[in-house]
Order: sequence, then C-alpha cells, then structure tokens
Amino acid sequence: SRFEYVKQFELEDILLPRCWIVIRLDGKGFTRFSEKHSFKKPNDDRALLLMNRCAVEVLREFQDIRIAFGESDEYSFVFSKTSTLYGRRSSKLVSLVTSCFTANYVRWWPEYLPSQPLQSTPVFDGRAVCYPSDEILRDYLSWRQADTHINNQYNTCFWALVHSGKSHTEAQERLKGTLTEHKNELLFSEFGISYTKLPAMYRKGSVVIWSQELKTVKHTEDGTPVQRKVCEPLVCHDDIIGEKFWLSHQEILKC
Amino acid sequence: SRFEYVKQFELEDILLPRCWIVIRLDGKGFTRFSEKHSFKKPNDDRALLLMNRCAVEVLREFQDIRIAFGESDEYSFVFSKTSTLYGRRSSKLVSLVTSCFTANYVRWWPEYLPSQPLQSTPVFDGRAVCYPSDEILRDYLSWRQADTHINNQYNTCFWALVHSGKSHTEAQERLKGTLTEHKNELLFSEFGISYTKLPAMYRKGSVVIWSQELKTVKHTEDGTPVQRKVCEPLVCHDDIIGEKFWLSHQEILKC
Amino acid sequence: SRFEYVKQFELEDILLPRCWIVIRLDGKGFTRFSEKHSFKKPNDDRALLLMNRCAVEVLREFQDIRIAFGESDEYSFVFSKTSTLYGRRSSKLVSLVTSCFTANYVRWWPEYLPSQPLQSTPVFDGRAVCYPSDEILRDYLSWRQADTHINNQYNTCFWALVHSGKSHTEAQERLKGTLTEHKNELLFSEFGISYTKLPAMYRKGSVVIWSQELKTVKHTEDGTPVQRKVCEPLVCHDDIIGEKFWLSHQEILKC
Amino acid sequence: SRFEYVKQFELEDILLPRCWIVIRLDGKGFTRFSEKHSFKKPNDDRALLLMNRCAVEVLREFQDIRIAFGESDEYSFVFSKTSTLYGRRSSKLVSLVTSCFTANYVRWWPEYLPSQPLQSTPVFDGRAVCYPSDEILRDYLSWRQADTHINNQYNTCFWALVHSGKSHTEAQERLKGTLTEHKNELLFSEFGISYTKLPAMYRKGSVVIWSQELKTVKHTEDGTPVQRKVCEPLVCHDDIIGEKFWLSHQEILKC
Ligand SMILES: Nc1nc2c(ncn2[C@H]2C[C@H](O)[C@@H](COP(=O)(O)OP(=O)(O)OP(=O)(O)O)O2)c(=O)[nH]1
Ligand SMILES: Nc1nc2c(ncn2[C@H]2C[C@H](O)[C@@H](COP(=O)(O)OP(=O)(O)OP(=O)(O)O)O2)c(=O)[nH]1
Ligand SMILES: Nc1nc2c(ncn2[C@H]2C[C@H](O)[C@@H](COP(=O)(O)OP(=O)(O)OP(=O)(O)O)O2)c(=O)[nH]1
Ligand SMILES: Nc1nc2c(ncn2[C@H]2C[C@H](O)[C@@H](COP(=O)(O)OP(=O)(O)OP(=O)(O)O)O2)c(=O)[nH]1
Ligand SMILES: O=P(O)(O)OP(=O)(O)OP(=O)(O)O
Ligand SMILES: O=P(O)(O)OP(=O)(O)OP(=O)(O)O
Ligand SMILES: O=P(O)(O)OP(=O)(O)OP(=O)(O)O
Ligand SMILES: O=P(O)(O)OP(=O)(O)OP(=O)(O)O
Ligand SMILES: [Mg+2]
Ligand SMILES: [Mg+2]
Ligand SMILES: [Mg+2]
Ligand SMILES: [Mg+2]
Ligand SMILES: [Mg+2]
Ligand SMILES: [Mg+2]
Ligand SMILES: [Mg+2]
Ligand SMILES: [Mg+2]
Ligand SMILES: [Mg+2]
Ligand SMILES: [Mg+2]
Ligand SMILES: [Mg+2]
Ligand SMILES: [Mg+2]
Repeated sequence: SRFEYVKQFELEDILLPRCWIVIRLDGKGFTRFSEKHSFKKPNDDRALLLMNRCAVEVLREFQDIRIAFGESDEYSFVFSKTSTLYGRRSSKLVSLVTSCFTANYVRWWPEYLPSQPLQSTPVFDGRAVCYPSDEILRDYLSWRQADTHINNQYNTCFWALVHSGKSHTEAQERLKGTLTEHKNELLFSEFGISYTKLPAMYRKGSVVIWSQELKTVKHTEDGTPVQRKVCEPLVCHDDIIGEKFWLSHQEILKC
Repeated sequence: SRFEYVKQFELEDILLPRCWIVIRLDGKGFTRFSEKHSFKKPNDDRALLLMNRCAVEVLREFQDIRIAFGESDEYSFVFSKTSTLYGRRSSKLVSLVTSCFTANYVRWWPEYLPSQPLQSTPVFDGRAVCYPSDEILRDYLSWRQADTHINNQYNTCFWALVHSGKSHTEAQERLKGTLTEHKNELLFSEFGISYTKLPAMYRKGSVVIWSQELKTVKHTEDGTPVQRKVCEPLVCHDDIIGEKFWLSHQEILKC
Repeated sequence: SRFEYVKQFELEDILLPRCWIVIRLDGKGFTRFSEKHSFKKPNDDRALLLMNRCAVEVLREFQDIRIAFGESDEYSFVFSKTSTLYGRRSSKLVSLVTSCFTANYVRWWPEYLPSQPLQSTPVFDGRAVCYPSDEILRDYLSWRQADTHINNQYNTCFWALVHSGKSHTEAQERLKGTLTEHKNELLFSEFGISYTKLPAMYRKGSVVIWSQELKTVKHTEDGTPVQRKVCEPLVCHDDIIGEKFWLSHQEILKC
Repeated sequence: SRFEYVKQFELEDILLPRCWIVIRLDGKGFTRFSEKHSFKKPNDDRALLLMNRCAVEVLREFQDIRIAFGESDEYSFVFSKTSTLYGRRSSKLVSLVTSCFTANYVRWWPEYLPSQPLQSTPVFDGRAVCYPSDEILRDYLSWRQADTHINNQYNTCFWALVHSGKSHTEAQERLKGTLTEHKNELLFSEFGISYTKLPAMYRKGSVVIWSQELKTVKHTEDGTPVQRKVCEPLVCHDDIIGEKFWLSHQEILKC
C-alpha cells in the first residue's frame, strides 16, 4: 500500500559483533511495589526465589545466555559474544528478555507468594550493554556482586537498627560514614549477627548457569532407562569475583 | 569500587526530540501460541479484548501516550512528540511498555479466557520508531489499519473455505491472486457473509484514545455528588485512515 | 577471504528519513590558526570570503543542499529533508562534506590570502544533526545567526577597546555584564562606530542559496545566443530570522 | 536565546569503550580523479607517496593512532583501544581525521606531483568501525592487505595485457576466472615480470607506525649534542598478515 514507506523509519540497532551482550532488567518502582506486597525487609526469600525462577525460565527460552546474575529487583543476562540471535538487534533482545521475565514474574507469583495476591502490575525496565572482552565482562559481573554485598550489608544493619526500635532517620544517622569493615562488627556486637553466616543468596546474589545433567528420557521395552545429557539452568550463590568460580566453569566464557 | 568503570559502556540511545515516538509490540510466535490456546479462527474475541485491556492499562501507566492501535497479536503506542519521559531513552521506553503490556496480559488472562489456563508464557517483542511529522504518523497508523483490513479479509475467506471442508492448501490455492475487491464477493456469494457487517473490531482493529469523562469523585456532607473531569482510556474501532476521525479528535495530535 | 567477516562490524548510521539534515563544520583550533596567519581582528574579509567560496563549492558538489549558513570558522549545510544521498548515511555525509570543504579551503587559500602562505594545515570537524520540521530548522538557522550577532557585537567592542589601548583583561572587564542593547551605544559614543553600518557579512554572517540564472550556454550558427536556466550558488547576508527572507525564498523549504 | 533548544537535537554517537577504533578513508570517485590527473597505471608512485605523506601528517596530529594502513585511494587509521580522544565521539574522529588527511593531500600535492596541477578537488569519505579484540583488529588489517595483493595482482596483469596491445575487454576476458596462483605465472611467462620483485609498496601497501629515534635536539654550550628519544611516524611495506611483524612490534597492540 502507499503507506508502506513508513517501515523505512525503523532504523537498525545492531549490537557490535563479538562482544558480550548484557541485558539488565530492573524492577520499576520496586521500593513501592515491595512495600505494597509486604516484602520482608531487607530480603524476602519468596520474592528473591521468584526472581530466580523467572531467570531460569529466561535461560530456557534463550539458550544463547551463558550466565545470569540477580539481586534485589534486578537481573543481568549475558548472551554469548558469538550469539547472532535476532541478528543482535538491540530492541529485539531487550524487549523479548524483559517481556519473558515479566510474564514469568506474574505467572509464577502465586506459586512463590501464595498468601499475597498481586495488588498492582509489576513492570521491569531493560537495557543492552556490550562488553568487548572477557575481563571486562567479569568486571561487570563483579560490579553487580560487589554492589549486592554493599547494599545487603547496609540494609541488614539498617533494618536491624530499625527492628531494635530506632527510627529510620536514627538508623541512617548511625550508619552514615561507617566503613564496610565496621558494619560487620556492629552487626555482631549489637545484634549478635554473624554477617558471613547469613544466607549466601542475600550476601552474594544469585547466579544462574547451565548445568549438564544425566536425565532418564525414556525406558526401553525391557525397562532399561535411557539417559541423555540435558542442559538445565542451575541457580547458585557462588562468589563470581574471584578466580575460583571461573576456573571451575570455563565453559561459560568459551566461544 | 574499581569495577564501576563498566557503567561507561552504557551508550545513550535517545530518540530524536519533537518526533512522534511509536512503540510497537508484537506477540512472539503467536501462530503457535494461539493454536495451543485454541483461539477461535480467524478472530478470537476473548484474545482481542485481552489485548485491548492491556493497552488500556499501558495508557493508564504512561500518560504521554496519545493514541494506540491494535490488531491481531500486535499493538502500537504513540507517545506525544513533546514527551520527555525517561529522557526519550529508547530502551527505557521499549522495555517498560513491553513489560507493562506483558504483565497485564498474564495478569488479566484468567478474566478474559477463564476456561483456558495458560499453557506457556506469552512473550512480546517491542521496538521504537520515530516519525517526524503528523502526516507521516497518520500514514503509520493508516498502514497498520490497512494491514488489518487486508489480513482480516484474507483470513475470513480462508477460514470460511476451510470450515466448508476445503484443505488449507485448497483454500490457499483458491485465494491466490484474488483482488481485494473480489474477496468480499466470494464471501457473500459462497458463504452469505456480508463482510462489512462483521464486527468492526475484526475489520478495523482497535483504537485507544483518552476520553474526558465526568466522574463522581466524592459526595459533600449533604450528599451532593462532587464531579470532576477525569481522563480515561477509551477503546473504539473507528476508521483512522480518513479525515473524519482526526477532525473530531484534534487533541490527539495537538502539542 | 577468511578476513572478510570484519566488514560486518560496520554498523548502519542512517539519519531519520524526512528530517532536515544539517551538517555543521567548525575549524579546529582556529583561535590559534587565525593568529598564526594574522587574520584581521575581529573579522578578516579574506578569511570569511574564503569560507564562503568553500561553501559555494560544497553546494556545487552536493546539489541536495538547500541552504548554507556560515560565520567565523563554521559553516552549516542543510540537506533537503527528502534527500536520499548516500542512503542518508551519517558518516558518509559528514565526512564527504567536511572533506570537500577542507580541500577547497586549502586549494583556494592562495587566491584569497595571496600574501599569506599556509603555516599549518587547517582542519575542520563535522557533525550531522536532524531536524524534524521546517520550524525547528528555521530555529536552528536563527540560532546560528543570533549567535553571529552576539559574538560579532562583543568582538567589535572588545577589539575597539583593545585597539584604543586597553589590555585584553581591561577590555573584558569593561564589557562584563553589558547588555546587548548597551554595546551599540558604547561603540557609537566611545568609538563613533554605527554598528548597523558595519558590513552585513560581519553582523549577519553569510547565507548561500541556489539562484536561477539565465546563462548563455552556446551560440547557434547565425550567432544567436542560446540561453538556459542554470542554478548557481549565491552568497548573501540577509536576515534569516524574520519572515521576509522565507517568503521570498519559498523554494528552499519546499519538498 | 530562545533558539538554543535546537542544540538538544545533537545526539551522542560515542564509540564503545575499550575497542580498537578504525577510521577508514577512501577517495571519492578516484577512478575518474586518477585518470584526470594521468596517474600511472596501475600504480603511480607519486600518488601513493602523497597518500603516505598525508598519513604521516595524520599520525603527527593524532598521537593516539597506533598504526595506519594504506593502499590505492584508501587509508585506515587505528586508534588505541584505550583512547578517549574527543570522548570517542564518532563524528568528531571521522570528520577530523578525514579533514586532516584531505587538507594535507591538497597542501602537499605540488610537492609530489609538481608537473601536474590539480584539475579538480580531491574528496575523501570516512567511517569509524570498532573492533573488540586484538585478533579481530589484526584480521581487519589482514583483510586490507590481502585485498591489496588481490587487486594489485589483477591490475598488474590487466595493464600488462593492455599495454601489450589488448583492448580492455580482451584483457578482462583473458583474466576472468584465473586463480591467483596462475596470475603470477601469466605475468612471468608472457611479460617476463617476476611479481615478487615488484615494489613492496604495490604488493603490500603501506604501513605507518611510530618509530623511536634518537634526535639531536640542541647542543650544550661546549658543543656536546643533546639527544632525546622522539617518536616519528615511519612508513614501511611489511607483511602484516603473518606473526613476524607483530612479534617485532609488540608496542602497537599494548595498552
Ligand atoms: N523489602 C524488600 N525490598 C526489596 C527486596 N528486593 C528489592 N527491594 C526493594 C528495595 C529497593 O527499594 C528497591 C530496588 O531499588 P531500585 O534502585 O531498583 O529502586 P526502585 O525499583 O524503587 O526504582 P527504579 O524504578 O528502579 O528507579 O526494591 C526485598 O527482597 N525485600
Ligand atoms: N486464531 C487466532 N489467531 C490469531 C489471533 N490473533 C493473532 N493470531 C495469530 C495469527 C498469526 O499466526 C499470528 C500473528 O502473526 P505474526 O506475524 O505476528 O506471527 P508470529 O507471532 O507467529 O511470529 P513472530 O514471532 O511475530 O515473528 O497470531 C486470533 O484472534 N485468533
Ligand atoms: N581574527 C580573526 N579570528 C577569527 C575569524 N574568524 C574566526 N576567528 C577565530 C576566532 C575564534 O577564536 C575562533 C573560532 O572559535 P571556536 O569556538 O570555533 O574556537 P576554536 O576554533 O579555537 O576551537 P575549536 O577547535 O573549534 O573547539 O576562530 C576572523 O575573521 N578573524
Ligand atoms: N591509475 C591509478 N589509479 C589509481 C591509483 N590508486 C587508486 N587508483 C584508482 C583505481 C580505482 O579506480 C580507484 C579506487 O577504487 P574505488 O573502489 O575507491 O573507486 P572510486 O574511488 O572510483 O569510487 P568510490 O567513490 O570510492 O566509490 O582509484 C594509482 O596509483 N594509479
Ligand atoms: O542502577 P541503574 O543502572 O538502573 O541506574 P539508575 O540510577 O537507575 O539509572 P537509569 O535506570 O536511569 O539508567
Ligand atoms: O511486522 P514486523 O515489523 O514485525 O515485521 P517482521 O517481518 O516480523 O520483522 P521483524 O519483527 O524481524 O522486524
Ligand atoms: O559550538 P559547538 O557545537 O562546536 O560547541 P562546542 O562547545 O565546541 O562543543 P563540541 O564541538 O565539543 O560539540
Ligand atoms: O570498500 P568500501 O567499504 O568502501 O565498500 P563500498 O562498496 O565502497 O561501500 P560504501 O558505500 O560503504 O563505501
Ligand atoms: Mg535504574
Ligand atoms: Mg528498581
Ligand atoms: Mg534495582
Ligand atoms: Mg515481527
Ligand atoms: Mg507475532
Ligand atoms: Mg503480528
Ligand atoms: Mg566545537
Ligand atoms: Mg573552531
Ligand atoms: Mg567556531
Ligand atoms: Mg566505498
Ligand atoms: Mg574510492
Ligand atoms: Mg578505494
């Protein structure tokens, strides 16, 4: 038709080949959303496990993802640097990953927060970022995990103070300027909390990788199980800043 | 931290100021999704009304949207050319609109298709396109509505033939090369269907605009209702190709 | 060859269709360059006329240019909003226009500054900007011409003060905070300069448009001259902020 | 002024950090330009040496360039992957490098082609391409040098045939489908030309790198020369496809 020329206004937005592609999602206004749904402070297991479930579903849908990292209301998905999914079109990748994550968040909500009906619609923003080398990609992931630690340590202190009777302002004042080293002391001396004994999911965030498992896919006529290697997303809470993780999971960065 | 430099790899993706911004969503693999969920062919009212509901919710969330148009598994949202929402960052707008739409799709699914539980997770892609003038924006909307007509006319013929006993291939053969003018004749002479009497939603798609309504917001002590003008999204199925619609809704393009 | 894959790293950089494209050039380090070549202060006719000559040559090379505006060490070239030159690829347009301008600057230098050999290589930067409507394009051109006025008025005062014996710092101090209205008074009362009588080229900059001229292209056998309308770039110094110019040159914005 | 808002239409075009930036220039319409200026076929030393001189001047101007490669009417300049020159703005780098090269081309033309006055203005296009790793950058440079070989071998055969009396079409026909291996044979058997004995500049193109030289910068009072290490651009015609070059010039890729 004579209107078809408008298609030409769609400009290409291809991401540079051979770079790692990170799609990072973040909940829109989750400060409010978490309050409205009475998320436990500072960490609500149900909410975090729901986030992880969504990430697992995203990996199942987009097999070019090598690793994902989540904390709080955000998740980062790392596409292989050699991926050519959707011709590496930025909008396609950003929108599809965000949509898939969001759909799963609503779909599985009742399974993770059965006592808490949805009061409003959860929405996530998304963006694509390219990282040209393995080192810089690792620095990206380290950045997110270091952030997890800093935020969680602060929040743990803050809510311990608040739960002990302090006002929000008092808690804030008390923590202003404290070094990260002193916060663990404060937690232990004032509240008997050993920070390192808190669940790894709070302290380290969640890492999703592919795990090869032997699965029984059928049985032969005489009942012998037939097994096949299948790849399944696996959630862990490992340290991804140090070398150890990467030495034991060299397949993640291999291309 | 020493990792923060990775933030610099996030490149700006601002959409040209003073252009109309269209965010178009489209269901991923809805050929399969609609079959799996037994959508009526060629048009399933429940599915279309759910799409419209999602669009209404998107307008409620993003008040800078001036008009939206939907058909089949797609929806286009037009942001005001003067909008500065999220600094006109493309990824923000694309991802948030797509996420909001998707979340509502899953959330309200049981209300629109109560007898049909979700078998898989619906996912939408999204993209942003800029249109520099009112005329070109109107051409864009005309393009989508003309497409609705062409597809619906074809599909109506196709499924009428199939429901009358023809195979898919036979139906396809029968329609190959028929002009749009002849398809209405075929429908009438062979199946007694007056194309123009089919529901406007099938033929014209769905248009969402803002409607000013007088709403009773509270009552004074003596019981007098207090009314206020409120803007509410309104779904209609008007022709948006001709002049008439735009003459009666001049506020849509006004900036 | 096995190396050809590297071509894929060239990403598309197409400028939005149906927008006016402005390519603006600006001399690199011309503060230094103009001193080194003893440009007259604040305006050197030879340098300005050379700039205009280059602009004329650029128009001759790129016939999709509708209008150009120059002042000081900069020039803006406006490509028709319907131009599809080089598929509207940004780098192509920016680099070719900049290159063409620069080549002419060096080529014609000896003609405009015969007594002044080149001491160093003049270099220009370039950029592309899209403007979605005629109004905004006109505002762009007004912006540049208003800037010309402001700079020229200031510079005229500044150098008048300096030539009258003040130091640079004293001249600067004297002008700090003076309103644009007062500067003309100062020029008149202290130096007898009627600002509005200064050459239009200094006050308004230079505008290049296409002029249709009747040109004798050959003579018939009996000596009768054969004339043809030819388009030639024409330099003027008109006001392009007001309506008048645009009313008399409606062809510029016509598409 | 009220026009300043137009500045906002300048959109950011920053090149991904930590990637090698290649700015490649190519002569516009040099098929015609080289004929008009009677360039020797297939290689004109004067023209090639002028290109190299321009490249040397570009390196002198932009010290973040690590290596450049030129052949025919094109030159590629490789900026360090850690360069932050002009904030890595694509248009700035493309336009400035193209402008600098072009200005030098016109400026030094009379020195390299003294007997051949410029008949028309030479113009170059430019583009920026990012390469995320050292390997891919080397593949880029290999791509250009392999291209040099293929083109030069073909052109040498073609012009030998033409100079021996064949028409252009006959020469073309004769060469159609010949493998690269057979072309050297043809040259030797029919024209007695040992391809490998042709000047390296024709076969390998030109490479510009930085060379550290000891330069006498002044003399002390008693006449002792004071020497300092200075970096100067150096043109060579080495093979840059194999390992050898890179082993002896490890500083090029070091960051
Ligand atoms: N209580 C509670 N709150 C959480 C939990 N996870 C995330 N949140 C809340 C804490 C933060 O206020 C918020 C995440 O911070 P953001 O910087 O993303 O802010 P927010 O989402 O409000 O704004 P945004 O739209 O992202 O700019 O989500 C949780 O497990 N429990
Ligand atoms: N039966 C039925 N199918 C529908 C209805 N609305 C949309 N669909 C189906 C028909 C088409 O096969 C499909 C939309 O076409 P698309 O071109 O978007 O294809 P699809 O979503 O399969 O692939 P895509 O991922 O968008 O490339 O959705 C409906 O109301 N009833
Ligand atoms: N004396 C004299 N100087 C001029 C004339 N035209 C331009 N200039 C000088 C005055 C300014 O210092 C300079 C233009 O200002 P810019 O803002 O473009 O600065 P400049 O080129 O030094 O730096 P840039 O590389 O553009 O950031 O050129 C002229 O006709 N006479
Ligand atoms: N005779 C001669 N010609 C040369 C020499 N170096 C380059 N050329 C010519 C041969 C080619 O026709 C032309 C370079 O090929 P291009 O593919 O760049 O084509 P051209 O510049 O004509 O078109 P373009 O504007 O780049 O698309 O320049 C030389 O040393 N001698
Ligand atoms: O943590 P981010 O990257 O989301 O940082 P922000 O401050 O929320 O910024 P924005 O989402 O606007 O990029
Ligand atoms: O109708 P569209 O624009 O989605 O067209 P398409 O053929 O699906 O193409 P794509 O979604 O890959 O842009
Ligand atoms: O006048 P401009 O636009 O060149 O402004 P600037 O301050 O020189 O900035 P830049 O050239 O770095 O865009
Ligand atoms: O050799 P190139 O990259 O210049 O290839 P081209 O065929 O000239 O294409 P372009 O239009 O990108 O200059
Ligand atoms: Mg954010
Ligand atoms: Mg958030
Ligand atoms: Mg967050
Ligand atoms: Mg599509
Ligand atoms: Mg679809
Ligand atoms: Mg569709
Ligand atoms: Mg500047
Ligand atoms: Mg300048
Ligand atoms: Mg300037
Ligand atoms: Mg080319
Ligand atoms: Mg060329
Ligand atoms: Mg070439």
